[in-house]
Amino acid sequence: MAAPGQAPAAALRAVLKPSGPLPAQSLPVRGYDFAGGPDHAALLRSFLTTGFQATSFAQAVAEIHRMIAAKLEPLSAEERDRAGLGGPRPPSGCTIFLGFTSNLISSGVRETIRYLVQHNMVDVLVTTAGGVEEDIIKCLAPTYIGDFSLRGQDLRQNGINRIGNLLVPNDNYCKFEDWLMPILEQMVDEQETQGTRWTPSRMIARLGKEIDNPESVCYWAQKHPGLVLDIVEDLRLINTQAIFARKTGMIILGGGLVKHHIANANLMRNGADFSVYVNTAQEFDGSDSGARPDEAVSWGKIRMDATPVKVYADASLVFPLLVAETFAQRADAFASGTPGD
Amino acid sequence: MAAPGQAPAAALRAVLKPSGPLPAQSLPVRGYDFAGGPDHAALLRSFLTTGFQATSFAQAVAEIHRMIAAKLEPLSAEERDRAGLGGPRPPSGCTIFLGFTSNLISSGVRETIRYLVQHNMVDVLVTTAGGVEEDIIKCLAPTYIGDFSLRGQDLRQNGINRIGNLLVPNDNYCKFEDWLMPILEQMVDEQETQGTRWTPSRMIARLGKEIDNPESVCYWAQKHPGLVLDIVEDLRLINTQAIFARKTGMIILGGGLVKHHIANANLMRNGADFSVYVNTAQEFDGSDSGARPDEAVSWGKIRMDATPVKVYADASLVFPLLVAETFAQRADAFASGTPGD
Amino acid sequence: MAAPGQAPAAALRAVLKPSGPLPAQSLPVRGYDFAGGPDHAALLRSFLTTGFQATSFAQAVAEIHRMIAAKLEPLSAEERDRAGLGGPRPPSGCTIFLGFTSNLISSGVRETIRYLVQHNMVDVLVTTAGGVEEDIIKCLAPTYIGDFSLRGQDLRQNGINRIGNLLVPNDNYCKFEDWLMPILEQMVDEQETQGTRWTPSRMIARLGKEIDNPESVCYWAQKHPGLVLDIVEDLRLINTQAIFARKTGMIILGGGLVKHHIANANLMRNGADFSVYVNTAQEFDGSDSGARPDEAVSWGKIRMDATPVKVYADASLVFPLLVAETFAQRADAFASGTPGD
Amino acid sequence: MAAPGQAPAAALRAVLKPSGPLPAQSLPVRGYDFAGGPDHAALLRSFLTTGFQATSFAQAVAEIHRMIAAKLEPLSAEERDRAGLGGPRPPSGCTIFLGFTSNLISSGVRETIRYLVQHNMVDVLVTTAGGVEEDIIKCLAPTYIGDFSLRGQDLRQNGINRIGNLLVPNDNYCKFEDWLMPILEQMVDEQETQGTRWTPSRMIARLGKEIDNPESVCYWAQKHPGLVLDIVEDLRLINTQAIFARKTGMIILGGGLVKHHIANANLMRNGADFSVYVNTAQEFDGSDSGARPDEAVSWGKIRMDATPVKVYADASLVFPLLVAETFAQRADAFASGTPGD
Repeated sequence: MAAPGQAPAAALRAVLKPSGPLPAQSLPVRGYDFAGGPDHAALLRSFLTTGFQATSFAQAVAEIHRMIAAKLEPLSAEERDRAGLGGPRPPSGCTIFLGFTSNLISSGVRETIRYLVQHNMVDVLVTTAGGVEEDIIKCLAPTYIGDFSLRGQDLRQNGINRIGNLLVPNDNYCKFEDWLMPILEQMVDEQETQGTRWTPSRMIARLGKEIDNPESVCYWAQKHPGLVLDIVEDLRLINTQAIFARKTGMIILGGGLVKHHIANANLMRNGADFSVYVNTAQEFDGSDSGARPDEAVSWGKIRMDATPVKVYADASLVFPLLVAETFAQRADAFASGTPGD
Repeated sequence: MAAPGQAPAAALRAVLKPSGPLPAQSLPVRGYDFAGGPDHAALLRSFLTTGFQATSFAQAVAEIHRMIAAKLEPLSAEERDRAGLGGPRPPSGCTIFLGFTSNLISSGVRETIRYLVQHNMVDVLVTTAGGVEEDIIKCLAPTYIGDFSLRGQDLRQNGINRIGNLLVPNDNYCKFEDWLMPILEQMVDEQETQGTRWTPSRMIARLGKEIDNPESVCYWAQKHPGLVLDIVEDLRLINTQAIFARKTGMIILGGGLVKHHIANANLMRNGADFSVYVNTAQEFDGSDSGARPDEAVSWGKIRMDATPVKVYADASLVFPLLVAETFAQRADAFASGTPGD
Repeated sequence: MAAPGQAPAAALRAVLKPSGPLPAQSLPVRGYDFAGGPDHAALLRSFLTTGFQATSFAQAVAEIHRMIAAKLEPLSAEERDRAGLGGPRPPSGCTIFLGFTSNLISSGVRETIRYLVQHNMVDVLVTTAGGVEEDIIKCLAPTYIGDFSLRGQDLRQNGINRIGNLLVPNDNYCKFEDWLMPILEQMVDEQETQGTRWTPSRMIARLGKEIDNPESVCYWAQKHPGLVLDIVEDLRLINTQAIFARKTGMIILGGGLVKHHIANANLMRNGADFSVYVNTAQEFDGSDSGARPDEAVSWGKIRMDATPVKVYADASLVFPLLVAETFAQRADAFASGTPGD
Repeated sequence: MAAPGQAPAAALRAVLKPSGPLPAQSLPVRGYDFAGGPDHAALLRSFLTTGFQATSFAQAVAEIHRMIAAKLEPLSAEERDRAGLGGPRPPSGCTIFLGFTSNLISSGVRETIRYLVQHNMVDVLVTTAGGVEEDIIKCLAPTYIGDFSLRGQDLRQNGINRIGNLLVPNDNYCKFEDWLMPILEQMVDEQETQGTRWTPSRMIARLGKEIDNPESVCYWAQKHPGLVLDIVEDLRLINTQAIFARKTGMIILGGGLVKHHIANANLMRNGADFSVYVNTAQEFDGSDSGARPDEAVSWGKIRMDATPVKVYADASLVFPLLVAETFAQRADAFASGTPGD
């Protein structure tokens, strides 16, 4: 703001407009003080008063802690019965939906997701078919770090597929075909001889069992029946999970159908109680991916009195840190038995 | 670049580095000259030499003209037979896939898409369930222009849903339910009594017939069998369409599953011949939505020798203008009979 | 939105929430109808009801028409005297500030800007030193269309500089040095012998005179004294222009200091009356570039009762079209004499 | 990737394309394993193999460590003499330029920047006038955390200015005027009576001395002469600093003129040796802010054999963490005396 100099009175009044009171409980801006050395936990706490997306990160941490606290609250017998209507999962005080696009499984965010699944910290996983495929493939052969600017023509000639700055040898997909085909044949056989009805969620459970590798998200998902739900076959189950839950939380990484389906299921209960979006999409093109949480409020997909948070950042940077500050801090509570018991 | 002043010789050499030859056929930058008044057609032609996304727009115009020219090329009898293997569509020299996210149907881009479908200018439509639903709903009651910053809480209290800067009264969805339910019951009845097998593409055709409104995309789609294909049920059909086509073109508005499925079908033929992406997503987070065409080249989804174009812009601004400069310029050729005949 | 199926009453109530009234005068969404052929003027008018950024474009057209109408309103004798205090420009009913980053001068948007300057359609130009330099350089040798993905190493070895998808041979900068040096020496001489005080705005006028080329923005700027103002030396002049203007309008292409300075000058008059931003920056990182017009309202840089518009798009795509629908439509009014006379 | 089913041979060949070798030393993707609990340091190290922007973050950490190692290398007597030509700063093995936009001073990133300045970890600060003003203002009264969606009209009526999700009472600017005016008068007096020539960098030093507050960046800058350079007055000094430095590093937060000037100074030495950009801007609109490091290579602003890194993220999220993993880890080395001694 330039000094007004010898401007006339109207200009001075405009520039020197006096201030009224701030919103109650406004926090002064103050960043991390390195005088005490690089204490990561304190640094991440200081994000609340750092501003911009650092503040959004800290608000997301707080929102996830509210989800977890609600999840860990004990249920009355009656509530347990009611929540049990939602499906095969153990009832808890808050049903947490975790959605993610398949590229996050290709990346090292897979290890963070697997941790949440392994320890039963989330209740419903929503992803695309690619997310399942990439999870299995990574058990068969590694994906590599590459570069965003490697040329497509050179890569294709070498049979190397690029996903952002990741590289996946096409041989990995061939290995996947070789691994998958006999299992599919076996599944067809079971369908014909035993009448098994293969929904996507049952198929994912089967693949997780066959891959038999604790690095796999599917491996752990198959140990927790009802965790992965099929948006076609199990649509009613997703909806009833949402309807009968005491509270619900949504953690959505990326956009597209994953974001849409989780939010839509929560419309059935007149809105999620807790919501965290992490993505880089913008609202100006009217895309569902870029829609802010407040658009979901207009639809009844998020409660009117909720405090949803969107962090505008690549999930690879943010989600491992979010989990470090939330679920991983409460690991003991999750380890001590079925949440909500 | 600042003048180097009395810098030493090394600095001068760095600053005054002499130039070698430019890439062959480089065009000088030159924007539209308003001296002749606002001639829109000439202005849009000048985009080729305007730079940045104006140039990308002009390159997309050229790429779509290549698609159309390939489509209108006559087929030999043998080729027609082979291409006929691809499905129920009349064979042509280039099978054009058009993909779009559902928000574009909510917007006025729907009228542009409808025009392309009505006049048989594209061959395969790929969208999400929401795209079909919004198309029907707009036949029952209007969607309105609103504002991105309207508050979710106020809107929800009034039962008004927001999609970017559009507003859809929730009553419209209620009308849709009322309209849909008897049709669904009738369809169930036909399934039970006549053994009809309802795939999504057959269901879309039925809805288009029932709505009986030439403003609807579905209305026209039902008049062109094979235009809308179901990615689950008709997957083999999509793939064979791609495999047996003489050439293929992709026009993809937005990202998500729509973009992924079209590109994946084109892998089956070792890559699309012509490609235009229009979206606002970025590659830095490794998302499929933001992946540049060159990433698809690495996978074999776009041919190594193709000249694909991505326009970084909201499709509402760009797609009507793209169609005005391409398909609408060739309307006579499309009207004169089945392309490729 | 999925059909609720046999959901309980609460779910039905959430989904089937009845609607209250829409905001008054809400326009139904309706895109361009190609049945009448590709009529560009009608197509661009249809953007108002197309939604998303197409609507923002149409709103920007309307806002600029309001600027122009205010500019062309006659002034009373008293008002003319008062506005004359603002500086050397002919007083008019609305002082229009046009800001742009230097890359737009490198691109073909330069021809659009030159048209506005040549015909005295805007009142204050704000750009960076690079914008002036690129304008002169393009009179000496052409800039070329290239590609965003050309490799820096290859280009540097050939002495070719890249600006997005534009290419500038380094020789062009050498030619500029050769052209500039004798003029600078002459200017130093005039400073020493005649006491000339060279402010940036006087220097730009001189360069425009020396280049003597009607393709140059500087050439025309030097013919309209007071059009280009120096944000350091002429700061008071910018501020008084803003303070004493009857009304002001801002058209800002891109972000950075250009955006900041124009908005800040308008704080001195308690806010601009009319504002159009065109850029691709986002607000989530708290940058001035990405700040929405509503942030400027909080500072008093835009009037509280104004209707500012931001178009989220690359200016190369949007600005020539904006001018085609606004200033170029009113060319006769501007040609008929000094606006405001 | 869908299974090819009974596709013909050509489709199978396309899908099952065999792989050649990967680029040498490719790292397998692997994210953080929470089995060991939330160990932040290990988590941030795992970012190197996490992919997407997590990998870019880890690459930026490595690039900054290279800058620091070069800075701490001892200089020969001859080299010290030569580097001493660059200006008043103690010569070191690598001159580090730190640029940042003013909004980062408004945010809590200011505390991180202050730490680097206080401990003499960087050599040249480049920011805008707003960055200086906000630094002083925060010594007079606090800035507060707010929200991106607070309404401009409500805020203006209360005299509260918004910067992203920060709030600054307008009274703070009034306090700044009251504080600044007597100092400016004193400075004018010194100019007239003692002939002091007030360049921006001298003025910043004076303001830092007057504010006398160790929370201020300016306070510490005034204790390290030559650290803040004026891009107008001291342009030659910046350029000679770049020319005579043994090596240079650039750390640039945000875009605009700050980014441009640092890169331009490094052209004078035929390119910076080490570079880290942190911003959210994109290249598609040809803006200097969004230009990738590879564009700077084409200009000779970054060396052809350098390994520059851009992290696509809001600096508030990333920069404190970057400093925690780099400079703060080497605090002892910086404390042990003048770097390079």
